[in-house]
Amino acid sequence: MEFITSKENETFKNLKKLRTKKYRDSENMFLAEGRKFLEFEETPHVIIFKEGVSEEILCSAKKHMCRKITLPEKLFKELTSQENSQGVIICYNSKQECLDKLGDNIVVLNRVSDPGNLGTIIRIADAAGFKDIILTKGSVDCYNEKTVRSTMGSILAINILYFEEERLVSFLKDRDYKIVVTALEKDSIPYTKLNLSEKNAFIFGNEGDGVSKDIIALSDEKVIIPIYGSAESLNVAMAAGIVLYEVRNKLENK
Amino acid sequence: MEFITSKENETFKNLKKLRTKKYRDSENMFLAEGRKFLEFEETPHVIIFKEGVSEEILCSAKKHMCRKITLPEKLFKELTSQENSQGVIICYNSKQECLDKLGDNIVVLNRVSDPGNLGTIIRIADAAGFKDIILTKGSVDCYNEKTVRSTMGSILAINILYFEEERLVSFLKDRDYKIVVTALEKDSIPYTKLNLSEKNAFIFGNEGDGVSKDIIALSDEKVIIPIYGSAESLNVAMAAGIVLYEVRNKLENK
Repeated sequence: MEFITSKENETFKNLKKLRTKKYRDSENMFLAEGRKFLEFEETPHVIIFKEGVSEEILCSAKKHMCRKITLPEKLFKELTSQENSQGVIICYNSKQECLDKLGDNIVVLNRVSDPGNLGTIIRIADAAGFKDIILTKGSVDCYNEKTVRSTMGSILAINILYFEEERLVSFLKDRDYKIVVTALEKDSIPYTKLNLSEKNAFIFGNEGDGVSKDIIALSDEKVIIPIYGSAESLNVAMAAGIVLYEVRNKLENK
Repeated sequence: MEFITSKENETFKNLKKLRTKKYRDSENMFLAEGRKFLEFEETPHVIIFKEGVSEEILCSAKKHMCRKITLPEKLFKELTSQENSQGVIICYNSKQECLDKLGDNIVVLNRVSDPGNLGTIIRIADAAGFKDIILTKGSVDCYNEKTVRSTMGSILAINILYFEEERLVSFLKDRDYKIVVTALEKDSIPYTKLNLSEKNAFIFGNEGDGVSKDIIALSDEKVIIPIYGSAESLNVAMAAGIVLYEVRNKLENK
């Protein structure tokens, strides 16, 4: 265990920089906060403890063979994004994008902009058994602190790729994915009536604007979740959860 | 339009007190923030504008025949719970609990404690066509500012009742509701296999503890949402959305 007490320490300064996207991108590392993450097999790059952290947390960190650092509260506060921190932050190497092994059923997010929504979708996609998420450029950073926290660890399990929006449709078509968008169009069908192909890509759109018009125009199927009450719309994460679980049920009953 | 400029004004002081549950309960009123609420038919008790609010918002408020007040920014700030407020807060009379007209399919929340989760569940229950939600005592206040905001207006459409936990099961059984709980028990069945009765109550539990053991013991059916990936659990609002939409689909195909 190392102790760092100075703000001028290089390691501390570098860890702190990981709170910005720019540095996360250049260093290919990100921070995840909370003991939950210690339960995963993924080997951290560094584990950072707040001085005086509980024995329980120190114990769950034991299995991970990596650099471990303790910071006094004052320094730890500069790293944490939570008011009531559990006192442990884990620094991971960002995952390599894996294009070769894309599954037959994948999720695509088209400029989802809220960090909490993105994290919630990563969590529910994982729960529903999806392995790959493509984010079009302009989506929020999947290593944003709030996103990582909202995934409850699923960020470590999911293969996440960033794509230029222009490249997306041809990439999917070249690989024989049926392109399914959620969209409130006149010819949209209820999501329960969807027929699956061998390979399917399920696209969810931006919170305000939905899926972009260009992608809708080139899609193979448009689906809606019917609304029966007075609510005007569904939150995108909720919509993704409902559609992805319906798809999973269809796949299981094939 | 009235202008209030003094913090000592009685109306202002009373409106401000509505930010606490105690006063909301004694006055039977609550605050809802944002222009979205103006679109609903529900007649407000008072509409409060921030000085300099947009013409658009003033215009959408026109249809409502009620008291209207403008506050200078300094006073408005004491009422708002949002950093980037749209500049309009609506004060409504709390709705009368309506026990007589309970629908055949109702939602029950057993000590859901997070305001955002409660609001999200009210919104998704409304979207899925449910009209009534029973909250057991100990659940978060449905008129909490964050809850109201998360409902996106559905709070105005749903009949919400508070019940002592001890009274709940006998009340439901006396009225022939099939009691369905979401619970990770050994004999839980996948939610897709659920057989509906003529009348059904769907119970979702606390974020950490789930549905209380006493209610589970007296339930007629226990359901789970299977998890296919590495995620450990689903957020309660997401679980409610997935189950309630599945139920709605079953009801539509009956």
